[in-house]
Amino acid sequence: MAALLVLGVPLLILLAALAPATVIAGAQPVISDDTEACLDCHSMTTSGIYWDWKHSRHAQSSLSAALTYPELSRRVSIKAAPAGMDSIAIGCAECHTLNANEHGDTFEHNGYNIHVVVTPRDCSTCHPEEVVQYAGNIMSNAHSNLVDNSLYQMLQSSINGVQHFIGDTITTDPQDELTDAESCLYCHGTVVSAVEMEERDTAFGEMSFPVLQGWPNQGVGRVNPDGSLGACTACHTRHQFSIEMARKPATCAECHKGPDVPASKVYEVSKHGNLYYSMQDKWSFDSVPWIPGRDFIAPTCATCHVSLLATEDGDVVAERTHRMNDRLAWRLLGVPYAHPHPISANTSIIQNKAGLPLPTELTGEPVDAFLIRAEDMRERAARMKGICAPCHAAGWTDSHFARLDKAIETTNAMTLSATEILLAAWSGGYAKGPAQSGNPFDEAIEKMWTEQWLFYANSIRFASAMGGADYGTFANGRWALSKNLREMHDWLMLRSGE
Amino acid sequence: MAALLVLGVPLLILLAALAPATVIAGAQPVISDDTEACLDCHSMTTSGIYWDWKHSRHAQSSLSAALTYPELSRRVSIKAAPAGMDSIAIGCAECHTLNANEHGDTFEHNGYNIHVVVTPRDCSTCHPEEVVQYAGNIMSNAHSNLVDNSLYQMLQSSINGVQHFIGDTITTDPQDELTDAESCLYCHGTVVSAVEMEERDTAFGEMSFPVLQGWPNQGVGRVNPDGSLGACTACHTRHQFSIEMARKPATCAECHKGPDVPASKVYEVSKHGNLYYSMQDKWSFDSVPWIPGRDFIAPTCATCHVSLLATEDGDVVAERTHRMNDRLAWRLLGVPYAHPHPISANTSIIQNKAGLPLPTELTGEPVDAFLIRAEDMRERAARMKGICAPCHAAGWTDSHFARLDKAIETTNAMTLSATEILLAAWSGGYAKGPAQSGNPFDEAIEKMWTEQWLFYANSIRFASAMGGADYGTFANGRWALSKNLREMHDWLMLRSGE
Amino acid sequence: MAALLVLGVPLLILLAALAPATVIAGAQPVISDDTEACLDCHSMTTSGIYWDWKHSRHAQSSLSAALTYPELSRRVSIKAAPAGMDSIAIGCAECHTLNANEHGDTFEHNGYNIHVVVTPRDCSTCHPEEVVQYAGNIMSNAHSNLVDNSLYQMLQSSINGVQHFIGDTITTDPQDELTDAESCLYCHGTVVSAVEMEERDTAFGEMSFPVLQGWPNQGVGRVNPDGSLGACTACHTRHQFSIEMARKPATCAECHKGPDVPASKVYEVSKHGNLYYSMQDKWSFDSVPWIPGRDFIAPTCATCHVSLLATEDGDVVAERTHRMNDRLAWRLLGVPYAHPHPISANTSIIQNKAGLPLPTELTGEPVDAFLIRAEDMRERAARMKGICAPCHAAGWTDSHFARLDKAIETTNAMTLSATEILLAAWSGGYAKGPAQSGNPFDEAIEKMWTEQWLFYANSIRFASAMGGADYGTFANGRWALSKNLREMHDWLMLRSGE
Repeated sequence: MAALLVLGVPLLILLAALAPATVIAGAQPVISDDTEACLDCHSMTTSGIYWDWKHSRHAQSSLSAALTYPELSRRVSIKAAPAGMDSIAIGCAECHTLNANEHGDTFEHNGYNIHVVVTPRDCSTCHPEEVVQYAGNIMSNAHSNLVDNSLYQMLQSSINGVQHFIGDTITTDPQDELTDAESCLYCHGTVVSAVEMEERDTAFGEMSFPVLQGWPNQGVGRVNPDGSLGACTACHTRHQFSIEMARKPATCAECHKGPDVPASKVYEVSKHGNLYYSMQDKWSFDSVPWIPGRDFIAPTCATCHVSLLATEDGDVVAERTHRMNDRLAWRLLGVPYAHPHPISANTSIIQNKAGLPLPTELTGEPVDAFLIRAEDMRERAARMKGICAPCHAAGWTDSHFARLDKAIETTNAMTLSATEILLAAWSGGYAKGPAQSGNPFDEAIEKMWTEQWLFYANSIRFASAMGGADYGTFANGRWALSKNLREMHDWLMLRSGE
Repeated sequence: MAALLVLGVPLLILLAALAPATVIAGAQPVISDDTEACLDCHSMTTSGIYWDWKHSRHAQSSLSAALTYPELSRRVSIKAAPAGMDSIAIGCAECHTLNANEHGDTFEHNGYNIHVVVTPRDCSTCHPEEVVQYAGNIMSNAHSNLVDNSLYQMLQSSINGVQHFIGDTITTDPQDELTDAESCLYCHGTVVSAVEMEERDTAFGEMSFPVLQGWPNQGVGRVNPDGSLGACTACHTRHQFSIEMARKPATCAECHKGPDVPASKVYEVSKHGNLYYSMQDKWSFDSVPWIPGRDFIAPTCATCHVSLLATEDGDVVAERTHRMNDRLAWRLLGVPYAHPHPISANTSIIQNKAGLPLPTELTGEPVDAFLIRAEDMRERAARMKGICAPCHAAGWTDSHFARLDKAIETTNAMTLSATEILLAAWSGGYAKGPAQSGNPFDEAIEKMWTEQWLFYANSIRFASAMGGADYGTFANGRWALSKNLREMHDWLMLRSGE
Repeated sequence: MAALLVLGVPLLILLAALAPATVIAGAQPVISDDTEACLDCHSMTTSGIYWDWKHSRHAQSSLSAALTYPELSRRVSIKAAPAGMDSIAIGCAECHTLNANEHGDTFEHNGYNIHVVVTPRDCSTCHPEEVVQYAGNIMSNAHSNLVDNSLYQMLQSSINGVQHFIGDTITTDPQDELTDAESCLYCHGTVVSAVEMEERDTAFGEMSFPVLQGWPNQGVGRVNPDGSLGACTACHTRHQFSIEMARKPATCAECHKGPDVPASKVYEVSKHGNLYYSMQDKWSFDSVPWIPGRDFIAPTCATCHVSLLATEDGDVVAERTHRMNDRLAWRLLGVPYAHPHPISANTSIIQNKAGLPLPTELTGEPVDAFLIRAEDMRERAARMKGICAPCHAAGWTDSHFARLDKAIETTNAMTLSATEILLAAWSGGYAKGPAQSGNPFDEAIEKMWTEQWLFYANSIRFASAMGGADYGTFANGRWALSKNLREMHDWLMLRSGE
């Protein structure tokens, strides 16, 4: 052993540090006969999926092993394994044959009733708390929040509909399903349904498979063939379903990077992002609970919005939540004015005094009946500040969030100014708003107005909330906000002859 | 050994996992006398290059060792080593003295005839198949495809020429060589030639070196001093020439990240990119063949467009190709309309019915004579779909590509609408097109038109092809496409007084 | 030992390669009684900070150990440890009680006089050379360079002031302190001062803390409560203060990624960035001195602008400097025209012939009295070229920088053209410039002019300097520069009726 210690570092410590994350405590699980039957073909025909699953905790652990962990360290939220499932690996058959009767996409496949689309309802077999929490998340309703809101539908058609220049006029076709599915609904979620069966040639001869409409899709508000909402695979990508991946910012960036939701870009230029991108190779992304300082020295998206955090002594810093607005007092994005968070995950029920499906009036005044109260806002803000506490004194944190309050106030004011110019354009006859039976999003001046809040005001609020100054300044920030307002003014003055 | 097993992981397995990628099977190569002579000085004067090379497979293996690998695992495509080269390392002299007579940049240097610019023709000594394939790649002709196309030359001069405001008019100087070399030709490739010799002071006294015009450059279509086209170092950066680097997306991003070719940005917000950026530290980028699932769980650029893929059992999933359009049915970028891929790597030969050097008419109609036929398109599409198969069922893949077909159709239609507005601007006398002896790219309305296809339509097609929804929606996607069209319309209406 | 050698790689070499960066030579340091007293509570109440510090060299080494290193390998620049500090860890008390009398934010806390804001003056106790160098850095004066320049103040108020649309006119409120702090001053630095004491409930009962105005902030030009300028934590983030982090590009990107200073984006598409993002997991970021080729094969920001570089034999390639313009002949950004670097770190003293606080006239002519001379420029350029030398022959390097000279010339010319259009707009009465008592940055045409130099000309110069062609071409490069000029011209022609 002498040689092994010459560096002063015992070999075992080194080896422990090197043990792959996938070496999991507890007995090796048994692969069920049903899953073995799947693997007989699929380890070859879909070898990529097979390998991916092999790297997963599902393949390497079992419920009985999972339930030996202390409660704070568990990744399942059931208290006991369902009958027959305690010692087996969670393999193909365990998920793809669950709740077969409820699945509109169930089909017979080599003697098994299987479905392609595994849903939150299926996952709730072992992860019920997460699924219940997620249902309270505004994201779970992302599909209907978009398609059942008449204003958003006008916005969507003005973007996705093909436009023609005929005579001197632009006409817009209705948007089509394939385009919607790969743009707005990629993130918001499609409606997935089995419309018919088709025969396909396979390596094992001709076989029948359902034709799925709205497929593929992993949007957060996907409407599933069993009626459930959402796709756990949006963040816990199949077939590793890894907590590590869900905790890394590239996962959220899939939908939260564009100018309408620049969270990922803001993070990239924040001090937290700087730490992550520079030092993350030394961090642990697999520990449950997640210990600030020991496991990581700067938060990722999940840290602040989702994860169970605790100290090394087991004191809980923040409870795990998949109802991600539990820690958010304000809703910063997607509508003209920032406002207190909606009460219901279903925002398509919201209506303002003017009859518009908006949580504020066009002046910015919040529609109180649908929004959380000041007390709820304080509670949520306190939860978020609790997450700052391991690394930041209260004075630091309070001052940080005072700046966010100011950013909300000033960006709302700049949205109001843009709205007033738009109203002047409509009333001056230079563009057609709803009162003139026009789509409020399709003309040049309307698109400038839309960018004022959908891109620039949002960007500034995110930059403030997450400390990414660039996106509050020159990168789609206050520079763009003020420039766009002046261009709108310039546009109006040219036409009104002032 | 007991202690070495306490974690249940035999030490040797751990060590094997840890062995650096650069420990290569086979006998240690011999460094040739010529290369030793180079290293005598250059290990000091260019120590960075020396170290980089030391980390390379060229320094650590030999052709005889390389040829002991089974064919599917080889990185060289010759069947036997050239005389005298079988057991030596591939060092300075082996490449920089090759084919001396064909190199216009050859010069006498301490008794050796060496050249600075190592070319695909030099590399083909050991990698002939790759060089032949690459010559069929549209990228190998990137220089002449740009500079021998009269339309592109007008575009280039409207971008790179210095403009002056004199009287009320803008005049444009011809673009200069230094500017072209660091902008368009950085990626497209310069013409590199030795124009004269110059004396320079060095650590070893005064010495003569050639002055190279168009140097430095590593563009994919570089015109080399030996007449060959391309630069292997564009992707396999000197002096490690690593397959790992070429397989990582940052390599392609060097030229494929801007708004004209946003492949890298699209990848960043795709599910594939999400997996790469979150999990790649657990993947292998050095295996040949590359095994989906075992070596990686999501493709990089190289996976879909270049690499040799196989299953663990040695079944080939995709043949290696450096003729990268082998798997591409459509050409999505760089011209107003997406169209079937050109037949020839030399696109400067293409001419449409109107006499323009374009693969479609201004209406979008493809110029069939220069483009691959439907059958070829189906073959290439099938090759690409084969790469999806290890991880995606046929229904998934077919639906994905049906969306791409739709995106091509709708973005072509939106380009046509923009083109019709531009034609109206020209015919109305609000701008000067080719019929008025104007550069069709230099005025404000023309630049808006150019962005319609060069930035936004492209971006949407890439987003569709690679599943990066953001770039098909708000980030230079359909939002920008529709906004730009309305701004063009607005511009025209203001001037035409409608 | 036989088994340990079967791969041909001695175990000890492998282990050496694996030894964590944090295993530091020398005796384990003693934690001082004062720091122990801090840790009694703070290892719990701010456990994240505690862990972060535990990972630092400050916690794991001592000055006596640090001073055993050969001079070239040292990270401290004192020659001997201050009395009583030689064998202790640098913990909480060592920094937060230093120079208590000079700190306006000092307060009594459990028997200690501590301050929250540790400053460069505090750090200079052990790192005096770095602090002196940094004071010569233009960044150390970033606060006053912004707020004491009347032109920049007009720019800042036109961006950050809330604007209202009243009647047909836009009015602008003065910008507020909270907005400035999270936008411009996030990077430039706030003035931090203790304004009063407040009581707060803590886990240990009610306690008094100072209320800090301008806090939190880690801007490079922060004006500290002890009168010193800057924040070492801008790059060496608390509480690891790691050299590794400062050497990685994400650190500089926190302030140098937006369109006004796109250095990080340019790097991402450069060959150097390509190498970094593809291969950096094999590099060493912790070695002092830093050895090109052995430790890394492509430079990061720090390599070219800050770090001490040497060959393995100890020959110095570049001296360490925290006066980062030591290697920069030109100033490329932030003002309309690129120009020789200013002599003084304080640029608010500069005045041109027209009386404007600018280093050039509006024509681009440099104001020589405030700028370094040609000889200084040559010296600085030579220093930079010396850093290229380990990997690039002199011909390569000279040609690279000849292109930068050209880019400076052409972008300055394109700025002049835009300036002439703006002057025509002012003289034509279409906008109000300084001669009409207007803010030169607040109207639409003025904002277009500002983007010409603040975004596009800058971007091209950075792209040229660092070899990131995309940002010199389509991504805010020459495409945007030429398009913007044509839009300015279009704007003017429409109004002047030409």
